[in-house]
Amino acid sequence: MRDPILLTPGPLTTTLATKSAMLHDWGSWDEDFNRLTAKVRAKLLAIVDADERYVCVPLQGSGTFAVEAAIGTLLPKQGKLLCLANGAYGKRIAQLTEVMGRRVTVIDFGESAPVDPAAVAQALARDPEITHVALVYCETGTGILNPLDAIAAVVAAAGKKLILDAMSAFGGLPLALATLPVEAVIASSNKCLEGVPGMAFILVQKDALENAEGRAHSLSLDLHAQWKYMERTGQWRFTPPTHIVAALDSALDQYEQEGGQPARLARYRDNCQALIAGLEQLGLRPYLPAELQAPIIVTVHAPQHPNWNFQEFYRLTKAHGVIIYPGKLTVVETFRVGCIGAIGQAEMAMAIDTIARALRAMDIPC
Amino acid sequence: MRDPILLTPGPLTTTLATKSAMLHDWGSWDEDFNRLTAKVRAKLLAIVDADERYVCVPLQGSGTFAVEAAIGTLLPKQGKLLCLANGAYGKRIAQLTEVMGRRVTVIDFGESAPVDPAAVAQALARDPEITHVALVYCETGTGILNPLDAIAAVVAAAGKKLILDAMSAFGGLPLALATLPVEAVIASSNKCLEGVPGMAFILVQKDALENAEGRAHSLSLDLHAQWKYMERTGQWRFTPPTHIVAALDSALDQYEQEGGQPARLARYRDNCQALIAGLEQLGLRPYLPAELQAPIIVTVHAPQHPNWNFQEFYRLTKAHGVIIYPGKLTVVETFRVGCIGAIGQAEMAMAIDTIARALRAMDIPC
Repeated sequence: MRDPILLTPGPLTTTLATKSAMLHDWGSWDEDFNRLTAKVRAKLLAIVDADERYVCVPLQGSGTFAVEAAIGTLLPKQGKLLCLANGAYGKRIAQLTEVMGRRVTVIDFGESAPVDPAAVAQALARDPEITHVALVYCETGTGILNPLDAIAAVVAAAGKKLILDAMSAFGGLPLALATLPVEAVIASSNKCLEGVPGMAFILVQKDALENAEGRAHSLSLDLHAQWKYMERTGQWRFTPPTHIVAALDSALDQYEQEGGQPARLARYRDNCQALIAGLEQLGLRPYLPAELQAPIIVTVHAPQHPNWNFQEFYRLTKAHGVIIYPGKLTVVETFRVGCIGAIGQAEMAMAIDTIARALRAMDIPC
Repeated sequence: MRDPILLTPGPLTTTLATKSAMLHDWGSWDEDFNRLTAKVRAKLLAIVDADERYVCVPLQGSGTFAVEAAIGTLLPKQGKLLCLANGAYGKRIAQLTEVMGRRVTVIDFGESAPVDPAAVAQALARDPEITHVALVYCETGTGILNPLDAIAAVVAAAGKKLILDAMSAFGGLPLALATLPVEAVIASSNKCLEGVPGMAFILVQKDALENAEGRAHSLSLDLHAQWKYMERTGQWRFTPPTHIVAALDSALDQYEQEGGQPARLARYRDNCQALIAGLEQLGLRPYLPAELQAPIIVTVHAPQHPNWNFQEFYRLTKAHGVIIYPGKLTVVETFRVGCIGAIGQAEMAMAIDTIARALRAMDIPC
């Protein structure tokens, strides 16, 4: 049987070329591997047009590890974070900041509204103790797109620093560090870059990092120490996920060959449009209005029908080789379908067809 | 060209079967992947004869991340850790405990002596505030074997808890949790189990973990939360390194097929003996006496010759497809050669031959 298509927002479907890059073992101390790391770091900076003010620091683990490392290293012990939340991932930033014992205040915009720049400006005016602002570019909990440029402008105007969780956006959505005022951008290997999971990275202003020595709450998640060691030796500070770095290197080559961010965004947009059009033809409604929908993952209202049962729906779509995602909303019953990964129109058509078959098998009209 | 043989203590040479297990993408939420995780966790417990008092909690990242998670979660905020150090990895435990703001006291046994159980007993008698003791089973900085059973007995007799860093020992050296008094054992996928790097795991007493809610200094490294979430959902709390878990599953199957720990230890012992015998024939001296040498990695005195230059030696051995490791000692000039990985007598013979050629090319008599 062929492997299922993953319509999940990372881990996702990767190319065989990307996976095949893992068929070699690398000495983690060897200069061939150091060169691979350096190449990946440079490519990641180039993708978002980062100038020499920025450095790229890769980190072992999942994206959350890197978000925690960025906040734990960049937020001064006496600093205060304003966390802009409109979903699960924004809330997680507030939670990890609290756990490390730093000050954090949250504006919760609910689950279906984008972050409002005016509300951010007011909060910053009201509380001068805030030093940093954390924003999720595309909130994967729903797939909502936040107005990054407007929020970054408000944060900069108030003289505060922006930390951007671009996990599910990096490489897909527009992002240009040469013009956007942002102290750090965090993302991972396994979303729009179409690598495999196991590492993340932080693009961060060198000045900010220079001033952050000894600040981290954790040795493993000390971004300053990770950076300094890598600058000095070319190596990762602790054992790197060598195979995953090699896969990301290959995935980044394929990214360039496809035409970089504009080409990838165009493919994802086409995927998203085909998906939504197909779902609507089946009578299914996307949770978000079109203007808030990032072309990353689509949250869909569950059919209002007594036969609806997500587990059964999941089982049926999986039996046809399509893996979807459960909803992550607290109030409304939904499911999610990803648009990203090494997939295109054929896979979107197959997803729609599979969803239709599953609904019919459940005797739900569509 | 064939890939080089890695005589490095992880990442190391893995089989093609292990690497090929990474040629599939997995949905991190899907029950097939949950089953894979459950299988790996059960196999890891079985390897060290862990009874129902223990649970296995896997963690994203390198081994150090898991050591930090274990100490940050198991050591109470008012607890105090006695760290038994005889090399780089023991010292790192003290460092990460300090960074998280917990109390730690270190006994430093130098770089060439094993940890002395009598000194441990004295330290515990002297300082009743100590609650936990951390030990590295095989200190990879030199390859020294610490007397685990004797130290565990001393720690238990004093009513203290032992946290064991078994990173480079797990699956190779004897370890039986059914009889050894130890609160937690930490290891990673990419040492004696011959998986690829990117995840680690902690085998820990359920009681200790139950009592540790809310104690961790870090959300990402909160072992209690990682465990509870996995128990409840079968899933990893944050994006797992799916491909690496699959590779470890395959590596563990191969481990069983080889005959488990006794067979693996026998192969590594044979590797180590062949290596040391061959090196001695070339006039090279191991740093450690035979009785302290674990069959994991051998530290070798650099030749006392004016032509010696480690970089050049490394370049020459690498040109013949053999990757060795630099020394990690502060005082004596050494290099290191690993005995572990998917390698046997042929690779050891090749290593010796390659080292001899390199020395001759450098005009160093051997």
